[in-house]
Amino acid sequence: MTFIIRKAEKKDVPEILLLIKELAVYEKEPDAVEVNEKNLLENGFGKHPLFTCFVAEVKGSIKGMALVYFRYSTWKGKTIHLEDLIVKKDFRGSGLGSALYKKVMEFALAEGVKRVEWVVLDWNTPAVDFYKKTGATVFTEWQTVQFEEQAIQKYLSNQE
Amino acid sequence: MTFIIRKAEKKDVPEILLLIKELAVYEKEPDAVEVNEKNLLENGFGKHPLFTCFVAEVKGSIKGMALVYFRYSTWKGKTIHLEDLIVKKDFRGSGLGSALYKKVMEFALAEGVKRVEWVVLDWNTPAVDFYKKTGATVFTEWQTVQFEEQAIQKYLSNQE
Repeated sequence: MTFIIRKAEKKDVPEILLLIKELAVYEKEPDAVEVNEKNLLENGFGKHPLFTCFVAEVKGSIKGMALVYFRYSTWKGKTIHLEDLIVKKDFRGSGLGSALYKKVMEFALAEGVKRVEWVVLDWNTPAVDFYKKTGATVFTEWQTVQFEEQAIQKYLSNQE
Repeated sequence: MTFIIRKAEKKDVPEILLLIKELAVYEKEPDAVEVNEKNLLENGFGKHPLFTCFVAEVKGSIKGMALVYFRYSTWKGKTIHLEDLIVKKDFRGSGLGSALYKKVMEFALAEGVKRVEWVVLDWNTPAVDFYKKTGATVFTEWQTVQFEEQAIQKYLSNQE
């Protein structure tokens, strides 16, 4: 299949949002997406972008994306986090995912970071197997903790 | 115990680095710290800092720290990541850790983020219990994947 991998532009935002929503369905959280086009535009394409997005374009249409940003490890220094790697369902197995993954890793080396990090759901074995095959390491002892705005508000009000 | 919680300044970097190294020993990775004072200064106290650090000061000396930075969730938008929350061994149980944790959550609400996220080692039950007690949620199905620079280089050279 012929496709191009390139940096996302403002005009891609509507298609990017559709892909984000498709991933949420796959991850069994269809209603979890609170961001909208405005939020993506402001945070990714303004003066101090919070993230960089790469897209896979097939015949003028976006069929895959990888969204990354910088983090800081107090052990390793500057690192890259791969937030999402998404390929539209009908285009899985076409090489788009591998090409986006490769692009992210090239970007990481070009930026001089020591590590790329991301998370994967333990039941998503095709993804886990792919990552391991490329040479990445999956850690089972680190657990993710999330503290949501409303719960934080409740916690802080109890501290007073 | 009397202490002050404040934003870290350049002069705190040597003590911050000592705390980072102390955490690495606790996490059974004593040789994992590759960052140095120069790296911390450049990445945290320059024109476009990659992170914000809060410190707990006792009698003019740094006994605890919390290091945070922004991330971008394609579900939630801008979030904060708590990379490290460290209290010097002899000062644990003195309220420094809770005060730093509270400071991070106040910072998060002030910045208008929807979520604060971090990771914890599954065997670190005192930490896990504390986080849960405050209202945070611990997820066991998300696994951390790390791809180190040398492994990325190897992967990319095999792609050519």
